[in-house]
Amino acid sequence: MKNVLAVDIGGTHFRTGLFDEQGRRLLVLEGDTDRVAGRDWMLSQIASRCRDLMEQTDAPVKACGLSFGGPVDFPHQKVTSVHSSGWKGFELGKWTEKTLGVPCRLDNDANAGALGEYHFGAGRGSKLMVYITISTGIGSGIIYEGKLLRGKDYMAGEIGHIPISDSGSLCSCGGRGCLESFSSGAAMESRALEWSKRRPEHVERMLELSGGPEITAKGLMMAAAEGDQPANQILKETARWLAHGILMIIRILNPEVIVLGGGVGQSGELLLKTLRNALDEIASPTITYSTEIVSATLGTYSALYGAAAIGLGVE
Amino acid sequence: MKNVLAVDIGGTHFRTGLFDEQGRRLLVLEGDTDRVAGRDWMLSQIASRCRDLMEQTDAPVKACGLSFGGPVDFPHQKVTSVHSSGWKGFELGKWTEKTLGVPCRLDNDANAGALGEYHFGAGRGSKLMVYITISTGIGSGIIYEGKLLRGKDYMAGEIGHIPISDSGSLCSCGGRGCLESFSSGAAMESRALEWSKRRPEHVERMLELSGGPEITAKGLMMAAAEGDQPANQILKETARWLAHGILMIIRILNPEVIVLGGGVGQSGELLLKTLRNALDEIASPTITYSTEIVSATLGTYSALYGAAAIGLGVE
Repeated sequence: MKNVLAVDIGGTHFRTGLFDEQGRRLLVLEGDTDRVAGRDWMLSQIASRCRDLMEQTDAPVKACGLSFGGPVDFPHQKVTSVHSSGWKGFELGKWTEKTLGVPCRLDNDANAGALGEYHFGAGRGSKLMVYITISTGIGSGIIYEGKLLRGKDYMAGEIGHIPISDSGSLCSCGGRGCLESFSSGAAMESRALEWSKRRPEHVERMLELSGGPEITAKGLMMAAAEGDQPANQILKETARWLAHGILMIIRILNPEVIVLGGGVGQSGELLLKTLRNALDEIASPTITYSTEIVSATLGTYSALYGAAAIGLGVE
Repeated sequence: MKNVLAVDIGGTHFRTGLFDEQGRRLLVLEGDTDRVAGRDWMLSQIASRCRDLMEQTDAPVKACGLSFGGPVDFPHQKVTSVHSSGWKGFELGKWTEKTLGVPCRLDNDANAGALGEYHFGAGRGSKLMVYITISTGIGSGIIYEGKLLRGKDYMAGEIGHIPISDSGSLCSCGGRGCLESFSSGAAMESRALEWSKRRPEHVERMLELSGGPEITAKGLMMAAAEGDQPANQILKETARWLAHGILMIIRILNPEVIVLGGGVGQSGELLLKTLRNALDEIASPTITYSTEIVSATLGTYSALYGAAAIGLGVE
């Protein structure tokens, strides 16, 4: 019996876990990411927590899988993130291997989340699954016949940057009309900000539930779930654009299941219902499909389970 | 040495061919489809031509592959076309098998074209290829690791009906904003018709080259190639929307190669150049890709070669 380590590095939280060969979670350590403290702080955290986990088990650890919340150069096992300082070009795979003394493999969090949900969550047993993570941004991972479909430049699943409109505000990628700039958590928050400028009296509940000076996607979703009218209007607008993106995936891939994860994506029935209504409105009545759209069953742990799956697959 | 029969049934032309085990074309018979004469006429044509081909070879014929220019229910080997009379629900696979006495398999022309270009044309050796046929309508076939990616309901590759706009005219599918209603040959022809109503003096060359009372996509492409200004304007508008559809495919699948076939799709360098310019305009400068976009090398024979590939794969 051998165990694997799993590491999930996100912009807000990070997690380290110990899993057995069946992908069962044995131990998990949670942490908050200190963005200001930067890369070296994060690396020392990972190293010490992984060592702690390795010491807490008698079974040998055969490998470590890592999920990074940002762009990853998979063939070179490097972080390519340009958003957070210190990470760009860092050979995280090699570093972890050297530090922990076990084989390691690294992937981005959308691919890791897809692997997690495919092996242990909502996508189990499916032939073709698309996992979409909707949080601050939007990403996805496609699993076909048990393996990630990566694409020629390892850029398959970049659905945050499919063009869904001819106009719209400038996206972080430099393009215009990207799905991410219409349907992400950040897009919901910009809509809420517009409301708070023009109609401050309508955003009170959203603000309250966000617990801060600004409306968060989470607070907005909570207000919408309570029946708050403006919050529901923002949710509907967001879901209508998301439906366009999802319909594109259905038309191109016709997967068995689309799994929604990430902070916004896994928020449950209200999002699913609003999204399904939007899909019914825009989809052709004659081209039918039976693709299911469901929430991630591993919740905030999709990517961590995926990191375990990556670890289990490493020779 | 065994040969296979290949049948390509289109709305304008139909072809029957004899191929050897390496997929080499031994004999091809060409025919014009008589839409008015209907299904039974077509069936008798296929039967007699296939028998002719079988008589012209001493090598035994092991199987027959068929490409049908319209929707096909692949698991039931039925035509599901609702556009042309008599075909709906017809078990073309079974009928051919009974008539010719050899195993037969049927697929739609987008999938057949994809198989043809993958095995014998522009997609040879690629890991992930998308074949897009642009003629009156738009369809596609996706080949991943040597096999068609069909999707849960056998509806993968329905890219003619991806939503690329929130508005636009009603599509034949009953939806609105479908790629097909913006970028197909029929869409080009509607744009030309608008011009001929409002600015008849500008469409003279297109009309001339179309050789009839109405502008055809073919005549329009010929005029554009000559440098005709209005024809180029229509081509650019069409290519701009097509670029949106193609960018979606690149973002989702990041294939090695996208092969353009069909009457409009294979029209050559001018379309490719206009399309690449449009892609450069809309694609993000930071998310790069090396997906190639090329013309089908089998030209009007993509689907016939694909039918041969289908025949060669039948046990």
